[in-house]
Amino acid sequence: MTDLPAADDVLAAAARIAGHATVTPVLHSRALDAMAGCTLAFKAEHLQRGGAFKFRGACNAVWSLPAGVAGRGVVTHSSGNHGAALALAARDRGIPCHVVVPEGAVAAKLANIQRHGATLWRCEPTQAAREAMCAQVQEGTGATLVHPYADPQVIAGQGTATLELVGQSGAPEIMVVPVGGGGLAAGTALALSAVAPDCRLLLAEPAGAADTAASLAAGERRIEFVPDTVCDGLRGALGAPNFSLLHAAGAEVVVVDDADTIAAMRLAWQVLKQVIEPSSAVALAAVLAQPERVAGRRVGMVLSGGNVDLGALPWHG
Amino acid sequence: MTDLPAADDVLAAAARIAGHATVTPVLHSRALDAMAGCTLAFKAEHLQRGGAFKFRGACNAVWSLPAGVAGRGVVTHSSGNHGAALALAARDRGIPCHVVVPEGAVAAKLANIQRHGATLWRCEPTQAAREAMCAQVQEGTGATLVHPYADPQVIAGQGTATLELVGQSGAPEIMVVPVGGGGLAAGTALALSAVAPDCRLLLAEPAGAADTAASLAAGERRIEFVPDTVCDGLRGALGAPNFSLLHAAGAEVVVVDDADTIAAMRLAWQVLKQVIEPSSAVALAAVLAQPERVAGRRVGMVLSGGNVDLGALPWHG
Repeated sequence: MTDLPAADDVLAAAARIAGHATVTPVLHSRALDAMAGCTLAFKAEHLQRGGAFKFRGACNAVWSLPAGVAGRGVVTHSSGNHGAALALAARDRGIPCHVVVPEGAVAAKLANIQRHGATLWRCEPTQAAREAMCAQVQEGTGATLVHPYADPQVIAGQGTATLELVGQSGAPEIMVVPVGGGGLAAGTALALSAVAPDCRLLLAEPAGAADTAASLAAGERRIEFVPDTVCDGLRGALGAPNFSLLHAAGAEVVVVDDADTIAAMRLAWQVLKQVIEPSSAVALAAVLAQPERVAGRRVGMVLSGGNVDLGALPWHG
Repeated sequence: MTDLPAADDVLAAAARIAGHATVTPVLHSRALDAMAGCTLAFKAEHLQRGGAFKFRGACNAVWSLPAGVAGRGVVTHSSGNHGAALALAARDRGIPCHVVVPEGAVAAKLANIQRHGATLWRCEPTQAAREAMCAQVQEGTGATLVHPYADPQVIAGQGTATLELVGQSGAPEIMVVPVGGGGLAAGTALALSAVAPDCRLLLAEPAGAADTAASLAAGERRIEFVPDTVCDGLRGALGAPNFSLLHAAGAEVVVVDDADTIAAMRLAWQVLKQVIEPSSAVALAAVLAQPERVAGRRVGMVLSGGNVDLGALPWHG
C-alpha cells in the first residue's frame, strides 16, 4: 500500500486497535498551565503499551494484514520505540517479528524489544544500512515490512491518539506533536481534519534534525542532513507520504534546541511528574519557547514516549 | 476538635473539597501487573495539587473553619508536603498561612510552600522544637493549628482519595498506603469501612521509622524512636487518633527496607513512568516484597506524592 491514508483510515484504525491499545489518560497541570500561559491537555502516550504512541500504528499495521501474509511475520528498522511496538503487536497476533536496530540505540529500548519476543538484527546507524538489512530479512523470511513512519496504516494508527484526545477532552485550538519521520505528525493532521478542522497543527522539531522545517519551507522534501540531537526518536528523515500530508495540512514547525528540550523534560518530570523522553519533551519546549503563539489557548499535546535510561539522564553530565 | 472522625466525615470531606481538589486519575500498567502478580490500580495523588494527597486533608480542614476563625489564618509544622498543601488551601480561601519547617527538609518541598504564599518558620528537626515554634506562632497571630496528621478533619480529608478510587475503578480486595503519622492510613481505613468493608488494609512503613508496626503489635502507641529512612515524609510519629482508628480497623503493616523502597521507586519511574517520591514508593515496595499476600488480587494503592529533587536522586549516590 503506497497511497496516502485519509481521515477515514484513522477512524478505521481506531476501531481496529480497540481492545489492543490502551486508552491513555489526558493529564492536566495547573502549575504548568500557569508557566505556559495556556491550558494544556497532555495525551499520555508514554503510558501506552510499549511506552510510546508507536503501538497504535504498529498495531493497526499488524491487524490490517491478511491472515496468510501475516503468518510470515513482520519486519522493521527502528531506533527503538517502533521496534518494541511492532514486537508487542506481533506477539498479540501470534506472528513472528524481526527488528533491525542501529548500533548506539538506547539500551532501555532494545531491552523492551527483546522482552516482547522479537528477533534483533543489528546494523550500522545509517538509513542505507537499515534498509539493506531489512530487505535481507524480508527476502529470507517472507516477512512484511512495516515502515516506522512512511507506512499508510502506521500513519493512520498514530492519528488515533489525537482522535481519542478530542473525544476525551474536546477539540484543542492548537495541537502540538514532535516530528521526526512524520508518522505521528501526519496521523495527527488527518485526525484533526476529521474531528477538529479549525485546530492549528504545530510540529516540534529538534534543531539538529530540522528536515521537516526545511522541507515545508521549500515546498519539497529536503532530507539531506546528519542528525545531531539528544532526541533519539526524531533522527529519521521525513517520509514522502508524511511530507505530502503535512504540506497539504498547512502544518507549521517550531525548531527547538536540545538545551531547551532537556530543560522542558526536567520540567515535565518535576512539575507534571511524568517520565518522558527527550523526543517527547521537544513538544513542551516548543510551547514554552513560543508564549505569544499559544497565549490563552487550549493546547493539546501528545506526550509521545517515556523510554529513558534513568542511569544516563541528560542533566547528569 | 479532638474526637475521632468517622466514615461520614470522609463523605462530608469529599463534598467540601469538591472543586478545590483535583480528581486524580487511576493509572494501570500491564507490565507492573505482570511483575507484581496482581492487578494494581494506582490512585495518582502525586498529580494532586501541591504534588501530594496532603491537599485533600488541608483543604478539608481549612474550609471546615468558621469564617471568623479562618480569617486569623492557619499554622502547621510539616516536613514539606502538608505545608505546601495548607499554603495552597489557605490561598484558595484567602487567609494567611504559617508553616514551621525543620532544618534539612527537601528543598523542592520548601520551594513549593513559599511559591504558594505561606510564611516559613525554620526550627530544629525535632518534634519538640516544631511544636514549640507552632505554639509561638499561634500565640502571636491567633492562627488555628492544622496538625499534619492527627487532626480529625485532616484524617477525613485524606480518606477521600480512597473513596474516589473506589468510585473510579471499583473496590479493591487489598488497599496499600504508606504510613508515617497515619493521616492517610487512618483516613483510608475510614473510607474503606464506608465503601469497601471487605477490603484488607495494608500499611507500608519504612524499617527506619517502624513505630506503627510496633504500636499495632503492642496494642498501644510505641513512638519512642529516632527516624532513619530515605522516606522524608514518613519520619513523624504515629498520631493518637490515627493509632486508635488503625487499631480498630485491624490494619496490617509491612515493614520495608530503604533499599527496596529505592528499587521500587526506580521501577515506578521506569515502568509506570511516574515520578514518585520515596515516601510513596514504599507502598509499591511492600507489594513486591509480599507476592504471596497479593497474588491474583485486585490491589489498590495511593501514589502519595511526587516531590523529589531531581538533582539528588537516591540512585545517583
